[in-house]
Amino acid sequence: MARYDFSGQRLFVDAPLAAGARAELTREQFSYLTTVLRLGEGARLLVFNGRDGEWEARLTLASRKSGGLAVEARTRAQEGGADLHLLFAPLKHARLDYMAQKAVEMGASRLAPVMTRRTQAARVNLERLRANAVEAAEQCGVLTIPEVIADQPLPAALAALAPERLLIFCDEDAEVADPCAALDASGAAGRPLAVLIGPEGGFDPAEREMLIARPNALRLSLGPRILRADTAAVAALALVQARLGDWPRRAGAAQRRGPSEA
Amino acid sequence: MARYDFSGQRLFVDAPLAAGARAELTREQFSYLTTVLRLGEGARLLVFNGRDGEWEARLTLASRKSGGLAVEARTRAQEGGADLHLLFAPLKHARLDYMAQKAVEMGASRLAPVMTRRTQAARVNLERLRANAVEAAEQCGVLTIPEVIADQPLPAALAALAPERLLIFCDEDAEVADPCAALDASGAAGRPLAVLIGPEGGFDPAEREMLIARPNALRLSLGPRILRADTAAVAALALVQARLGDWPRRAGAAQRRGPSEA
Repeated sequence: MARYDFSGQRLFVDAPLAAGARAELTREQFSYLTTVLRLGEGARLLVFNGRDGEWEARLTLASRKSGGLAVEARTRAQEGGADLHLLFAPLKHARLDYMAQKAVEMGASRLAPVMTRRTQAARVNLERLRANAVEAAEQCGVLTIPEVIADQPLPAALAALAPERLLIFCDEDAEVADPCAALDASGAAGRPLAVLIGPEGGFDPAEREMLIARPNALRLSLGPRILRADTAAVAALALVQARLGDWPRRAGAAQRRGPSEA
Repeated sequence: MARYDFSGQRLFVDAPLAAGARAELTREQFSYLTTVLRLGEGARLLVFNGRDGEWEARLTLASRKSGGLAVEARTRAQEGGADLHLLFAPLKHARLDYMAQKAVEMGASRLAPVMTRRTQAARVNLERLRANAVEAAEQCGVLTIPEVIADQPLPAALAALAPERLLIFCDEDAEVADPCAALDASGAAGRPLAVLIGPEGGFDPAEREMLIARPNALRLSLGPRILRADTAAVAALALVQARLGDWPRRAGAAQRRGPSEA
């Protein structure tokens, strides 16, 4: 794809992607591309749909108010991401948006808001959370949109976890002071994982007992300072991805981030 | 300190702290405590000054417009923090505030804005950066305020680093794919460290050459997805603190976070 007409845009479309296919744009997407970004006929972008990999596509205008994409060549094959759920006590407004973006950047495959006794926020706006996840996925180069599920109380969320999924939760009083040693000792590299970030006021004693009592749970200590929930999420996910997840690259695996230089 | 009158506030004051001492409040601090928080005579808070540890103090009102603190009992002894500099290409506005907060939560002892060729932001507002560092330090429980230095071009910032300070910078093409292995191999646990977060557009080729050529430098790979600068900062600092810094607790060391229960 010639560099001079690549718009730099990367878009999620809910349509099959193959050479020669046409993909429809939603009204919002069309408006954003043409009115906000002022792209015109022939502008090039990258598209993905969560199942067919990533493709180069060309904007085609049917009229001033509608158009679609002509799908051309595949840039990246679909690959499975990590099986990594992020459970988190919801925050308010902009901080919740931020949490969603960071979770996607850090490779979470599911976002699961969890209501705890000390949670301050009201019920979660799922549409907003999903929209944030889509936008973050478009911008950070992932090939799938994380699943966003409805908020549920902590006990229900725990009961819904598959027993083989390791639950990692942040606990100042974790018995192993070294978080990397704790993760290594889990033996859980490559296995299904869940990271739980509690509310800013912490878990209450009954909740902590419930978490500690769960078989296949790991308590992670995140250092001597107080971390805000969104900081803790990124920090915990960094340690988990680096020790147990998809950060260490396979020898020789190249990472494609943008359009081909052809 | 009786729990019922602890205000939950923690304040940095630039005054000596000792039992029986009086500490002045700035006009802004007094106004915030009395007008915004509506605290009155006798309200209790925690104070620290970066050198004498953390103390319980009681608000005393001289008039409606001024007052001070009666310093009472020490809650925590002063301890040295990690010697960990964060060098970062500045971001704009709220994202810069956010970067400062995260750096403090993650234990940085110096914030050093660095201008690179692809840096988008204008010169840094140092007063704002310092104010953010103070507020973050008050809220996350640290005993010192990180030093905030003036922005400088990348070559000058590198030249100013002491040779024995390990420079850790994030590089998608790091030769060691496993970031934890790379950190372990550095042998730098407990030594002076600097973490460099580049601009969102990355370092240009000449800058990368300069970084790679520096003796005592370590390239860190942060996974296969594109991370925003503030995400990369928290992720890199988490790995560095967990492997080389102050996250693994010494056996038996208790962490004091709030006023004594007495």
